[in-house]
Amino acid sequence: MTQERFIAADWGTTNRRLYLIEKGEVVWTERDDLGVAARPDFEGEIGALRARFGAMPILLAGMVGSSIGWRETPYVPAPADLKALAAQCFNVGEGVHIVPGVALVGAGRADVMRGEEVQILGAAAAGLVPADALLIQPGTHSKWAEIRNGVLTRFTTAMTGELFGLLRQHSILASALTHRVDANEAFDRGVREGLLRDLSASLFGIRAAILTGGLDPKDASSFASGLLIGAEVAARLGDYEDGAAYILADAQFGALYAAALAIAGREAHIIDSHAAFLSGIIRIESLLP
Amino acid sequence: MTQERFIAADWGTTNRRLYLIEKGEVVWTERDDLGVAARPDFEGEIGALRARFGAMPILLAGMVGSSIGWRETPYVPAPADLKALAAQCFNVGEGVHIVPGVALVGAGRADVMRGEEVQILGAAAAGLVPADALLIQPGTHSKWAEIRNGVLTRFTTAMTGELFGLLRQHSILASALTHRVDANEAFDRGVREGLLRDLSASLFGIRAAILTGGLDPKDASSFASGLLIGAEVAARLGDYEDGAAYILADAQFGALYAAALAIAGREAHIIDSHAAFLSGIIRIESLLP
Repeated sequence: MTQERFIAADWGTTNRRLYLIEKGEVVWTERDDLGVAARPDFEGEIGALRARFGAMPILLAGMVGSSIGWRETPYVPAPADLKALAAQCFNVGEGVHIVPGVALVGAGRADVMRGEEVQILGAAAAGLVPADALLIQPGTHSKWAEIRNGVLTRFTTAMTGELFGLLRQHSILASALTHRVDANEAFDRGVREGLLRDLSASLFGIRAAILTGGLDPKDASSFASGLLIGAEVAARLGDYEDGAAYILADAQFGALYAAALAIAGREAHIIDSHAAFLSGIIRIESLLP
Repeated sequence: MTQERFIAADWGTTNRRLYLIEKGEVVWTERDDLGVAARPDFEGEIGALRARFGAMPILLAGMVGSSIGWRETPYVPAPADLKALAAQCFNVGEGVHIVPGVALVGAGRADVMRGEEVQILGAAAAGLVPADALLIQPGTHSKWAEIRNGVLTRFTTAMTGELFGLLRQHSILASALTHRVDANEAFDRGVREGLLRDLSASLFGIRAAILTGGLDPKDASSFASGLLIGAEVAARLGDYEDGAAYILADAQFGALYAAALAIAGREAHIIDSHAAFLSGIIRIESLLP
């Protein structure tokens, strides 16, 4: 049912973002690093929100519903819409619900998401993207999702961001990947190399190019990021042959993926991921049984 | 000049293998973990060998000649043969020489090797492989090398082994990748997925398949290894269109790469990498100025 006021949380692995929503508008929001990986005291955190804002419904989405979260909430199978998510929210009690993730099973491959489904279906419901569209959510585990008539039909996750982090922190390339990533000429060159989908060799090529003077070390981070994103884009665009791509991302990630898509010859638009999340979570709240 | 007795070392990043060679035969060999990454006292180690075996020439190959080794020995440019390696050995003094690595520069890409060139050219010189052949050296940084008329003409490095290590030690897949890798049915399935060259998504697919019951966790390591090796094989075979591949590897790595090449439809033979190294290092020693 539609409440006058409720609290929503996009509660991920590393961070959480809280929203106080009144009559469909955000009146307060806050982001902190109390993601589920920080093993927060979930009951205590809910109590603190209640103490601060008073008694009201609370709706949580993201990894909070995973096996490493608070209460494991079974996945809804794709194709999935907002109604299915609302119908299968986990009722923790005392007005707290957790939105389920979405699982894709069959057709020879499996995939899962938790949290992204709220943005994806919210973006479609709000008209931020067409009812038939390809959406991209860059990140540690990038999602490429197809909606048909506003329904989430299929999706693929690429662990591009995680691979970049591993390379930066722990690999032989770590000492070369210390600079900031920019959507510059080195990034573009990385994308073009990445489109060849020869990741394992192209990555070693960064070391070889630095050793032989073919790559300025200050360009290595941007080149490597372009390489990984280019390989991701090349592998995924074959799955989605037509139409523009809609990138749900902050400005920096959005610019990188938009640049990579342009090089791959695909039109792209950057969409406000916060607006998409709010659209989704407000609709799910209104559809709760 | 050909010496009655000399000491050879294949001195890599992690390990070194020492050989005492008399009249072209190995009379003693030993492997330890005093690779250059362990920052050994190089002068002290040479002194210890002299104290143990007496005064004789010493010929070192591998990362010992790199910027993280003992004396940085400039790369010989490809195409390279044993004569070029011998001519450009670094003379440390007191009968100690370091074999140079080989660099490939130009044609839009760069690559480097240190140590593998001795095996590759040694294998060809000993007739372990044809004079025109594709050689593969699996490992942390796998090498794919082409020899033409016994000369090392071009090569590509894939950081497949390093990626597997990063995933096993530091990634979200770490807890799933604890079992031993075997050339079993799960490995074969991984290879077939890897041939699609969709690495970033296929890797996340391991997590999704475990979460949704499509992959037995005990098969995850073999599947992941197959995936990485399959992607490496698919990317490289396009560079080398004809003929069998010759794998310079120990039995376990050899079996994995042979299985992956068979699935990719390429004939493969496993070659003894120690015999190849000895053939190369003995010939280089005999060619020293």
